[in-house]
Amino acid sequence: MSRKSSLSGFMELIPDEQVQFDAIVRSIRATYALFGFDTVDHRCVEPLDTLMAKGETSKEVYVLSRLQEEKDGNSSSKRLGLHFDLTVPFARYVVENAGHLKFPFRRSSIGKVWRGERPQAGRFREFYQADVDIVAKCENGQTEMQALPMFNDLEIVEAVGFALKQLESQGAPAATIHINNRKLLQGCYEALGVKDYPKALQIMDKLDKIGDAAAVEELLAAGETEENARKCISIAKIRATTVDELQDNSLIMELAERSDLAKTGLSELVYLLESVNMSEYDVKCVADLKITRGLDYYTGSVFETFLDGLENYGSVASGGRYANLTSSFDGKNQYPGVGMSIGVSRLFSLLSDSEKLNTTADGESAIMVIVNDETSRPSSNYVCAKLRASGVTSFVCPNSNKFGKQIDFAARRGVRFVLFIGDDDKLQLKNIETGEQNEYSI
Amino acid sequence: MSRKSSLSGFMELIPDEQVQFDAIVRSIRATYALFGFDTVDHRCVEPLDTLMAKGETSKEVYVLSRLQEEKDGNSSSKRLGLHFDLTVPFARYVVENAGHLKFPFRRSSIGKVWRGERPQAGRFREFYQADVDIVAKCENGQTEMQALPMFNDLEIVEAVGFALKQLESQGAPAATIHINNRKLLQGCYEALGVKDYPKALQIMDKLDKIGDAAAVEELLAAGETEENARKCISIAKIRATTVDELQDNSLIMELAERSDLAKTGLSELVYLLESVNMSEYDVKCVADLKITRGLDYYTGSVFETFLDGLENYGSVASGGRYANLTSSFDGKNQYPGVGMSIGVSRLFSLLSDSEKLNTTADGESAIMVIVNDETSRPSSNYVCAKLRASGVTSFVCPNSNKFGKQIDFAARRGVRFVLFIGDDDKLQLKNIETGEQNEYSI
Repeated sequence: MSRKSSLSGFMELIPDEQVQFDAIVRSIRATYALFGFDTVDHRCVEPLDTLMAKGETSKEVYVLSRLQEEKDGNSSSKRLGLHFDLTVPFARYVVENAGHLKFPFRRSSIGKVWRGERPQAGRFREFYQADVDIVAKCENGQTEMQALPMFNDLEIVEAVGFALKQLESQGAPAATIHINNRKLLQGCYEALGVKDYPKALQIMDKLDKIGDAAAVEELLAAGETEENARKCISIAKIRATTVDELQDNSLIMELAERSDLAKTGLSELVYLLESVNMSEYDVKCVADLKITRGLDYYTGSVFETFLDGLENYGSVASGGRYANLTSSFDGKNQYPGVGMSIGVSRLFSLLSDSEKLNTTADGESAIMVIVNDETSRPSSNYVCAKLRASGVTSFVCPNSNKFGKQIDFAARRGVRFVLFIGDDDKLQLKNIETGEQNEYSI
Repeated sequence: MSRKSSLSGFMELIPDEQVQFDAIVRSIRATYALFGFDTVDHRCVEPLDTLMAKGETSKEVYVLSRLQEEKDGNSSSKRLGLHFDLTVPFARYVVENAGHLKFPFRRSSIGKVWRGERPQAGRFREFYQADVDIVAKCENGQTEMQALPMFNDLEIVEAVGFALKQLESQGAPAATIHINNRKLLQGCYEALGVKDYPKALQIMDKLDKIGDAAAVEELLAAGETEENARKCISIAKIRATTVDELQDNSLIMELAERSDLAKTGLSELVYLLESVNMSEYDVKCVADLKITRGLDYYTGSVFETFLDGLENYGSVASGGRYANLTSSFDGKNQYPGVGMSIGVSRLFSLLSDSEKLNTTADGESAIMVIVNDETSRPSSNYVCAKLRASGVTSFVCPNSNKFGKQIDFAARRGVRFVLFIGDDDKLQLKNIETGEQNEYSI
């Protein structure tokens, strides 16, 4: 990963790195499957009006055109773009395929997304996300919370927390999921009389970057009073790892008393914090009232996730709850949803750059079959075919150089075992690291 | 797959179909790994000049632009496009990363590619390919065949043949790999005195579609004699499943006598046909002199693959050998390569449309944990966490309706087993198809 990419922002790995990356993806996929999520592979291309359906987006979209079309000067067809996340396509997919889905629908999706942003450390133009979401359909006058109770938020936090936990065996540091609630924030801001809630949220979203003084200034410029600006910052600084700690905070308890919305939000946050702390999955979490998820349209829980010791690199898994995931695509039905997305490429680049990964090459368990001379290559092929048929990764040496040279060839590839046909036509397996050699039968 | 896609040419599956698709990809990936190929995940985006490096391409390229850039009227940066296959990015990757690769380099890559063509049955604008390639580097004056002997072509045919064979357990019909050789064709055409070899090749490539009469007409129009036109067609009709059968053909044997190039090509074809027939992998192949691979720049073996009974849908796995894979990107070094690509999306759509697939939903082996009442949900969560920790795919019922209703909920999802906490706090596992019920311990 220290190599410079030939196309800035587009990660491409050499084989040893790819082994580590693949192991991460395989592990996340296995955890999501274990939790019983169905997989959906979203097409990467959407009509531009689908991508822009929520109106303003901070994500820079790549637009597609056909080279041929350009030449013909014919661009009458619908304009298309690459998806910038897996949530917009999921919302569109749910509305399109509602008749084929069983609600609440549990879906995982691991795939590439594209954003034309300026590349930085850990920020790519083409990158993988690994999403899990649960979406319900409100039927027979159900409310959001009847159709999709809070235990779904817990399930999402546990799935992602457990997926990250599994990566610790590959060298990843422990992760902490930071939880907040938009209802709580909005309710508190309303109780305070904050004038421009969305604007205040955006300013708080960048508090860590700009610092308190600049945040106060921006809030004042947005028309808030100095007292409210100070209180917004006090709220943003609340952190609690237990329910007791959270309820010890007099500011938040007082505001919750003054706003039903804040009270509801607080009770949701309390439920989640308590449940995760009680959970079997050993997931670390903290109530962190600084978490806002900026411009995204969440309406309840919001999540960000930081790796111990690598907090400065930003969140590696984020998400939240939507009262109506599909509001842009279906005016009639309400589909509440909750989900999180692991930023796999960012996660990998953090771990790789900080030399945390210990996954070894696949070659470790592979066997190379020696070729005694070119005329006996078919015999080596035969042996190799038998190995493969019994499920052992193997290949035949592509040269028939001297024995020692073939062993060097295997060693340079990180292959630890070679198999050869001995004098008496018996197979010999040699560990080229230890020199140990044994008769072998397939 | 009978549903109409909301964006023509862009396949997206409902969960039951996705299970089948994922099983195919997983199986192919496992076979490629078994054969000891390293994986490379190519970025999807290339500079346009890389995509067009070979000059004329019949593939319609999607060009990218940033929406923001359009607005700013600033498009000074390098133009980018989506890759239309995994071979061009591989060639570029080999040159860029040669210092990090060990040659001969065995690489597999499974990923999406895009072509702005008119969608048809089995032909998509966004689709998966699953490639295997072996690429060597000519060093110290090595010739192509010294650096990359013909047994590499055999290895590629076996890897793809075995990968397709493994899919038969999922319901795929047997596949036959059709092999030809560009040297043989070019040598024969030279011996005949065919004037425009590339043009003749293109006409023969569509022989099945246009028929003999039209092919003769096109060859005449291209300046060939009627006798040569007839002979080109006679050559294209040669098929042989054994070496004896091939060598019984007097036309091909006579032409091979008159051209060294044809003789070399014939001996390569004979080697492959003979080796595959002797191979342990039970791969069906046929020498088929109609196979040309049209405009593609192969220089030796060429391959196409047809499924028994579904021949009319076209090839599901194609490829061939390049004397110099990287000629467009590296003027100094020679990297001969041989590879094949399974058209996974096409393969899936053929099998799905012809109702061949028998893969069942993952739910078959999953367990749903019953919730006795909402207050005891944490106990059900606890049981579920234990199941998952022991590697069993499971989830907790998202409602706490009556027992029978929860069982209906599981059944509608294709889940066969439910687990519940019985009167004496003992776990009971129930097969909801057979009604069988047993005490269960995790």
